[in-house]
Amino acid sequence: MGKLEAEVNHQVELLSQRAAMLVTEEELRAKIRRSLEKQQPLKVKLGVDPSAPDIHLGHIVVMRKLREFQELGHEIYFVIGDFTGMIGDPSGRSKTRRQLSREEVEANARTYHEQATLILDPDKTHVVFNSSWLSPLTFADLVTLASKFTVARMLERDDFHKRYTAGQAIGIHEFLYPLAQAYDSIAIGADVELGGTDQTFNLLVGRDLQPHYGQEPQIALTMPLLVGTDGKEKMSKSLGNYIGVTDNPNDMYGKVMSIPDEVMGDYFELILAEPKQSVKTMMRDIETGKRHPMDVKMELARRIVAEFHGLSAANTAQDNFLRVFREDALPDDIETVELENVRAGEEVGLARLIATCGLAPSSSEARRLIQSGAVRVNRERLTDPFGSVRVTDGMLIQVGKRRICRVSVK
Amino acid sequence: MGKLEAEVNHQVELLSQRAAMLVTEEELRAKIRRSLEKQQPLKVKLGVDPSAPDIHLGHIVVMRKLREFQELGHEIYFVIGDFTGMIGDPSGRSKTRRQLSREEVEANARTYHEQATLILDPDKTHVVFNSSWLSPLTFADLVTLASKFTVARMLERDDFHKRYTAGQAIGIHEFLYPLAQAYDSIAIGADVELGGTDQTFNLLVGRDLQPHYGQEPQIALTMPLLVGTDGKEKMSKSLGNYIGVTDNPNDMYGKVMSIPDEVMGDYFELILAEPKQSVKTMMRDIETGKRHPMDVKMELARRIVAEFHGLSAANTAQDNFLRVFREDALPDDIETVELENVRAGEEVGLARLIATCGLAPSSSEARRLIQSGAVRVNRERLTDPFGSVRVTDGMLIQVGKRRICRVSVK
Repeated sequence: MGKLEAEVNHQVELLSQRAAMLVTEEELRAKIRRSLEKQQPLKVKLGVDPSAPDIHLGHIVVMRKLREFQELGHEIYFVIGDFTGMIGDPSGRSKTRRQLSREEVEANARTYHEQATLILDPDKTHVVFNSSWLSPLTFADLVTLASKFTVARMLERDDFHKRYTAGQAIGIHEFLYPLAQAYDSIAIGADVELGGTDQTFNLLVGRDLQPHYGQEPQIALTMPLLVGTDGKEKMSKSLGNYIGVTDNPNDMYGKVMSIPDEVMGDYFELILAEPKQSVKTMMRDIETGKRHPMDVKMELARRIVAEFHGLSAANTAQDNFLRVFREDALPDDIETVELENVRAGEEVGLARLIATCGLAPSSSEARRLIQSGAVRVNRERLTDPFGSVRVTDGMLIQVGKRRICRVSVK
Repeated sequence: MGKLEAEVNHQVELLSQRAAMLVTEEELRAKIRRSLEKQQPLKVKLGVDPSAPDIHLGHIVVMRKLREFQELGHEIYFVIGDFTGMIGDPSGRSKTRRQLSREEVEANARTYHEQATLILDPDKTHVVFNSSWLSPLTFADLVTLASKFTVARMLERDDFHKRYTAGQAIGIHEFLYPLAQAYDSIAIGADVELGGTDQTFNLLVGRDLQPHYGQEPQIALTMPLLVGTDGKEKMSKSLGNYIGVTDNPNDMYGKVMSIPDEVMGDYFELILAEPKQSVKTMMRDIETGKRHPMDVKMELARRIVAEFHGLSAANTAQDNFLRVFREDALPDDIETVELENVRAGEEVGLARLIATCGLAPSSSEARRLIQSGAVRVNRERLTDPFGSVRVTDGMLIQVGKRRICRVSVK
């Protein structure tokens, strides 16, 4: 095998790792070969929502793949979907799709670019706005574009299909958006388009339409969707289950530590590009008890924080986490104190309550402890020595690290 | 009832005559009332196909209704659909929808206008081209327009529904055309749109969209479709079952005479605006034998020709028709002559054949008759005295009006 073929194989193998779908490997191989022969980088497209500039770990799955393309010499095109963003939803049906101003779009794009270049090489990253080629399109241009795709195929798209069969309204303009997105590929002459698996249909429309405009069909490469910190839904800002790339080291570390054990493997693979085999071994070690899941998760959290804030910040975040964690760790045997003269929901003086529970020798000593910041109720620090609390059954009262009790009321 | 209300009632009654659908009478009444109060004529729209300038009697059904609007003082807008005409069918699926040049469209529009004003008052007839407002529409304008209508409603259109359920391709651009047609109504601010029943859906889309652009919904008024001379299909140029308004008087008269008796009533009503009651009486008279169907059809033909060529031309056409008809009438008892020595397909001298059949005393006398133009074979006049014919079984030979025979060969 020649040196060229070896390099082609290397690139194809690397780029198809972790992918959910690659259409087609054969075409990618041909494009890479030609790129090497002509010393011409591939144009790799990612469509970007202009209304959501904040990048979270869910985006990183695709970003990391983009970086791999860059490291092989290829060029990234962020296509900011400002055209549709600036139209909003003229049907008035969607409350979330409000109209954005030119300034908002540009500010969002800048923020996006700043965040993206935490991962990507800015020199090989182009930011383009699709309004620059979509706005000048005439009705005649659109008729031509729209004639290349059928209603039946459009209705095959998963969400359209569901809404259509459920009798929910689909505006005809919604059929124009996938065509516009495909036209983006034509306008920049994309060789490859990346996206999450939820973009599969749109990426394939681009592939379909390019040949009608004298271009080779783009490669459609989709990456799996990362689940959020809830371990269930796709990570997204609107669901609140996201970890932002600009989250501070402590928050980021803590959020990663909050994910369910079952999804750790995905995070290792999709965010850190840990090889499949090594992830498997790690998971087996947890199953056989060779490693503790918490240790593995701490490794994950530390490495993710290191990625965005550097190793030293990651180590500090880990120390902070451990300190708080140890502070927060509750002993297994917490005494329960039954309060005979208090009913659930009643307000009582906090100092008095602490004394009653036997966590301080007297109310005045309790007030001193409260004032010194040693007292927490249901994990929350309370510092008003004359304050009162509404008593609930099972309420947790802590004084310092060791004096703890649960309250029992009726 | 005041004078105004009386006039409103009169107009509504007249305009709804013969209509297949009027949506809605109530709104038409209101528009007419306001038109009278403000002395402002209604704008009555008819969409015109830019590729077919030849007007036939099928168009006249709608034209006559337009003339009724004009006679009441309203104004007609022919909207020439040059925009789509000049795009053609970019999907390349339709062979008939070829791209038209600006010159072709304009020539067609001129021809159309010339023919239309055989029926309509040119002073109250405006010809406008929809490219003048559709060409400048931007993608953003179109998204807004398209957002006002749903995919589900579009798929309710009869032909789309059939094609979709039959698995036949519908290009997405085809969904844009009804919207464009609706936008025509918006652009001219149509009060009323007329069309054949096959235009019902498109007229209703116009009604739907106008309020989104701050206009009252237009009145949708459809007229029944006239069947062609075959008595079955809708009259259309492509089916060859049409009677053109520029057909010469003899052709026009003859074509009308060729329609089946059953559709005469429709022609009286739809083309000549004969009142329903009078048509009913006419039909009953035919049934009861009080009138001969042929007499009724001659009245129809004469009146239709008179409409387009004047009464004197109509009378001449009728005379011509009767002369030819009488000449052509064959007696009931035609003798059959069996030719013993001739086989089917054999060529024989015509003069000899005539003599053999006993239609002339000798071949030389037969030659004289041929030369004088008295001889017809299968209705076709032959004039070469030394010519020959290929004999077929049942071949009809006529010499003058009375000497006729059929040939029988094996």
